[in-house]
Amino acid sequence: MALIVQKYGGTSVGSTERIGAVADKVIKWREQGNDVVVVVSAMSGETNRLLELANAISARPVPRELDVLLSTGEQVTIALLSMALEERGCAARSYTGSQVHIRTDSAHNKARIREIDDQRINADLAKGRVVVVAGFQGVDEEGNITTLGRGGSDTTAVALAAALKADECQIYTDVDGVYTTDPRVVPEARRLTRITFEEMLEMASLGSKVLQIRSVSFAGRYNVPLRVLSSFEEGEGTLITYEDEEMEQALISGIAFNRDEAKLTVVGVPDTPGVAHQLLGPVADANIEVDMIVQNVAPDGATTDFTFTVHRNDYARALEILQRIASELGARQVSGDDRIVKVSLVGVGMRSHAGIASTMFGALAKEGVNIRMISTSEIKISVVVDEKYLELAVRSLHEAFELDQPPEIKS
Amino acid sequence: MALIVQKYGGTSVGSTERIGAVADKVIKWREQGNDVVVVVSAMSGETNRLLELANAISARPVPRELDVLLSTGEQVTIALLSMALEERGCAARSYTGSQVHIRTDSAHNKARIREIDDQRINADLAKGRVVVVAGFQGVDEEGNITTLGRGGSDTTAVALAAALKADECQIYTDVDGVYTTDPRVVPEARRLTRITFEEMLEMASLGSKVLQIRSVSFAGRYNVPLRVLSSFEEGEGTLITYEDEEMEQALISGIAFNRDEAKLTVVGVPDTPGVAHQLLGPVADANIEVDMIVQNVAPDGATTDFTFTVHRNDYARALEILQRIASELGARQVSGDDRIVKVSLVGVGMRSHAGIASTMFGALAKEGVNIRMISTSEIKISVVVDEKYLELAVRSLHEAFELDQPPEIKS
Repeated sequence: MALIVQKYGGTSVGSTERIGAVADKVIKWREQGNDVVVVVSAMSGETNRLLELANAISARPVPRELDVLLSTGEQVTIALLSMALEERGCAARSYTGSQVHIRTDSAHNKARIREIDDQRINADLAKGRVVVVAGFQGVDEEGNITTLGRGGSDTTAVALAAALKADECQIYTDVDGVYTTDPRVVPEARRLTRITFEEMLEMASLGSKVLQIRSVSFAGRYNVPLRVLSSFEEGEGTLITYEDEEMEQALISGIAFNRDEAKLTVVGVPDTPGVAHQLLGPVADANIEVDMIVQNVAPDGATTDFTFTVHRNDYARALEILQRIASELGARQVSGDDRIVKVSLVGVGMRSHAGIASTMFGALAKEGVNIRMISTSEIKISVVVDEKYLELAVRSLHEAFELDQPPEIKS
Repeated sequence: MALIVQKYGGTSVGSTERIGAVADKVIKWREQGNDVVVVVSAMSGETNRLLELANAISARPVPRELDVLLSTGEQVTIALLSMALEERGCAARSYTGSQVHIRTDSAHNKARIREIDDQRINADLAKGRVVVVAGFQGVDEEGNITTLGRGGSDTTAVALAAALKADECQIYTDVDGVYTTDPRVVPEARRLTRITFEEMLEMASLGSKVLQIRSVSFAGRYNVPLRVLSSFEEGEGTLITYEDEEMEQALISGIAFNRDEAKLTVVGVPDTPGVAHQLLGPVADANIEVDMIVQNVAPDGATTDFTFTVHRNDYARALEILQRIASELGARQVSGDDRIVKVSLVGVGMRSHAGIASTMFGALAKEGVNIRMISTSEIKISVVVDEKYLELAVRSLHEAFELDQPPEIKS
């Protein structure tokens, strides 16, 4: 008997019929002798409906009240799914984030989970009930409703799985697993049966929309085996765990890319200690997330050039902040480009294999793709290229690393 | 400076435009130097939308989960109204029933308020904030979400006004006050400027849909001055207080009626102690509310006839229960009629005036209206008549007691 936490996203619970189908699926797992905790999102379309109401009232709704509003979306789903389970003779109990004390900080609209009280859930499980928990939401120390931001239901599921020491956390979605890259760009893309947390983290953070990055990070930290699978089709999906002996020994697991990037460069900043902090501090204060950061010393040796990327939506604001700071710091010039994308090779295998980078740059050069920025980590090489080269770059790399072929199993 | 609790119903907050208008109204009261606590219902149509979702999943949704579902309706409104207030520069905070600890019993779908924690609200008022509370909902001792049943938002408002010792509880609705009777039946019906709690209680319980009976009872018990007024028109509405010297000295305040009645009679029950309990106990256990109860001793002296009225929707169930019990008790016969209505004269003035009953029965007799049952209280005389006589009975009584004329003010 295992304890399984399952998460169903918005399209999986998008109608009362689909909620019924989810109930059937949950009961199948129960009947196999498992304890089941289910985390659900708002029915698809509901969050947008609520946002439209808010926007009709205010162009900038108060964050605290936006959370009160949006959290109703998941609350509707937990009630309906519990009704559907009970209707089928399966004892169930629904809980809001607040009711099971999913404690978060007070950062409305993008709160982070601090702790979860497992007492109430364990008591219900002991009574043979399926427990249905609202994803995406929590409660701060003062009892205010918070939300984790869009997609936060994955994080709720993983955090619950960690708190309950679940055997597996299953994320049901509208794709049947994690692919070597986006099949819409490369039709030969292949579903991976396994991938490591580190690789998945890079894939997720680089724009693979399958899982929220925070949930993968959580799962890795607490060693919760995570499985991505389809709500609509049968299949084993992709299991995300730590690297082990039996694992596929691929050099590269996949190619991630992110269309929504923009880059900003400050040219000729006096190269004094603390300059990076002085430049990026105000950007962070404005809640703009910075991704790649590259710093080069300029030929004169006294100044430095500083480039970083942000989400394209934050480009205008970041540019404005940077222009102010740059003139205060006596920088020569600020420039930017919001028509760039990032393409990354991801794979734990590259740790122990030289030559990956040169193969990558070679494949891109052969197609005439100009590289604008490069950034590397232990298991990833990212390049920034002009938007128009995105598909060409991804396809040529997928081919160069033969990702359409299943890797050899180590004997 | 006064503390005012205001309640806005579903049509008053039926769209984002109307929520904006409510915000304007609240701010007007704030600017006159008052502290304001606002209680809101779900946007009109929302509760039905949610019920349809539930019914698509289960013909009999689990009561606990129905409460989780329905309580989202008011939660949406509190968030939107708080946003609208903040958008207009007025500090505001929204709270669900659970967040301000509106403690109820655990009778899901028809819970009763036990106590309210005023601490959080008072702290916000002290900071100059308008406090917006979700009506209709609470939380039981175990933290489960409960609802007070339809219309329960009035009760929430009055309970809050009592807990906070508010100076006035204003119920905004789509009518501009309490009338001597339903103006759709009697066009000459007149708006009352004042009415006592006792009278209002009788009016409300007899089918005047302006206020929920429980809220009037609450208001009376805690002596919370209650005012009914229109969300859409200017005007003073009707103030509901205790009788005082300056009050209008009308014999009769109004005529209430209830179309949705049914009556059941058990004939020839052995007249032993406890028989009323044996008959009505199982009916109450089935959560059927019994209204008028009349018992007559039969001519033989050994048996008794027992008649009571219920809501028409409960008629079939009550009849079924009664037939079972009656045969157990050895009663001769069970009969019933679901085409009856109740018409009542209400007025504190009748306490000290004889002859009201005979004037009433005389007026009905003159029109040929046959009386099927009579029941009286200190400030009310009710008669049950055939459904077809309803309008005729109400109009003739309105005329007989000259209710279209304002009462003389006692000098």
